[in-house]
Amino acid sequence: MERLSRQLHFIAEAGRLKGVQRQTMLTELARQENSAEHSWHLTVLALTLAEYAPPGTDLGRVVAMLALHDIVEVDAGDLSAYAPAPEQARQQAAELAAADRLFGLLPPDQAGGLRQLWDEFEERASLEARFARALDRLQPMLENVKAGGGTWCAPGVTADQVLTKVALIEDGSPQLGQFARDLIGEAVRTGILASGSGPVGT
Amino acid sequence: MERLSRQLHFIAEAGRLKGVQRQTMLTELARQENSAEHSWHLTVLALTLAEYAPPGTDLGRVVAMLALHDIVEVDAGDLSAYAPAPEQARQQAAELAAADRLFGLLPPDQAGGLRQLWDEFEERASLEARFARALDRLQPMLENVKAGGGTWCAPGVTADQVLTKVALIEDGSPQLGQFARDLIGEAVRTGILASGSGPVGT
Repeated sequence: MERLSRQLHFIAEAGRLKGVQRQTMLTELARQENSAEHSWHLTVLALTLAEYAPPGTDLGRVVAMLALHDIVEVDAGDLSAYAPAPEQARQQAAELAAADRLFGLLPPDQAGGLRQLWDEFEERASLEARFARALDRLQPMLENVKAGGGTWCAPGVTADQVLTKVALIEDGSPQLGQFARDLIGEAVRTGILASGSGPVGT
Repeated sequence: MERLSRQLHFIAEAGRLKGVQRQTMLTELARQENSAEHSWHLTVLALTLAEYAPPGTDLGRVVAMLALHDIVEVDAGDLSAYAPAPEQARQQAAELAAADRLFGLLPPDQAGGLRQLWDEFEERASLEARFARALDRLQPMLENVKAGGGTWCAPGVTADQVLTKVALIEDGSPQLGQFARDLIGEAVRTGILASGSGPVGT
């Protein structure tokens, strides 16, 4: 059972994602979201919002990508989407090393297929990856609205920066992109997101 | 945007699953697992253990079922698999009412398709549902082994009761059923699970 044993090792290692905290606050629970919960919520977004994906999108691939997209964080941790560029570059290198290690736990004939889903997501290399990335950007925005600001209230975060994330949403789904743009406009109007450009990323 | 608004309401309500605690202990994190994390981990099990599903199983449907199978717990809470029959019956009624409410939040033309996945899982009405149910039974066993006993150490839980769950695993995947049977034998040998039959469920 060497084969199953390798697969169970991968499953156990992936499970450590339950202990990786994200920036996103879950207001009702008075704690931060972890990456396992986030990944699950994204699969529910994909199943519910499938009709906003471009024609020809394979929903099964989208859901599989979303389930796996963050597992590298068990080694690399989570980094804010608004972190400065040098930190983002270090994070990317750490995530690549983590992908090598984690997918390398699997039987070699299986590792490639699952690693391919992760690479595709990272590189936004398909309709599926772009839609999955759009949902990955949209979900924290929904949580921020619910939290009355959430990560939007971090020092230096402004509407201009958040709008750069909207470009990624529009790229995966024009309709959800428009929705996100409206959401940000409303967040600025209600004062839970600062307008204009801030010191970070400008 | 009435349609999208209904979909986002469903997504937000489902998100409350992050606050539903299961019996399963996550030893490394010194806390109980929640149902959102559990559902996510099951999607990773499905993607990794797909080869043990019977030929003809549609993996996309399995993963979708697993993502949605527990959302009724946002209203009904989680109940131990070893609870007495009357409690199980009450739980089933509460979950049915929750399914009516939650899937009823969606646009009517969409509600049926997602509800169908939930019903199918509950009724073990397809290859996909039986494989998904097998994984749902297997995952807590893996956590129990890791925890050195976990829910197996609850008063009155014995190998005979755990073996009744193994029948469900065998029904979805003979190979994983055999693996689970071996796992339980080993758990009895190492003393993290009591042998024989106990006062509950006998």
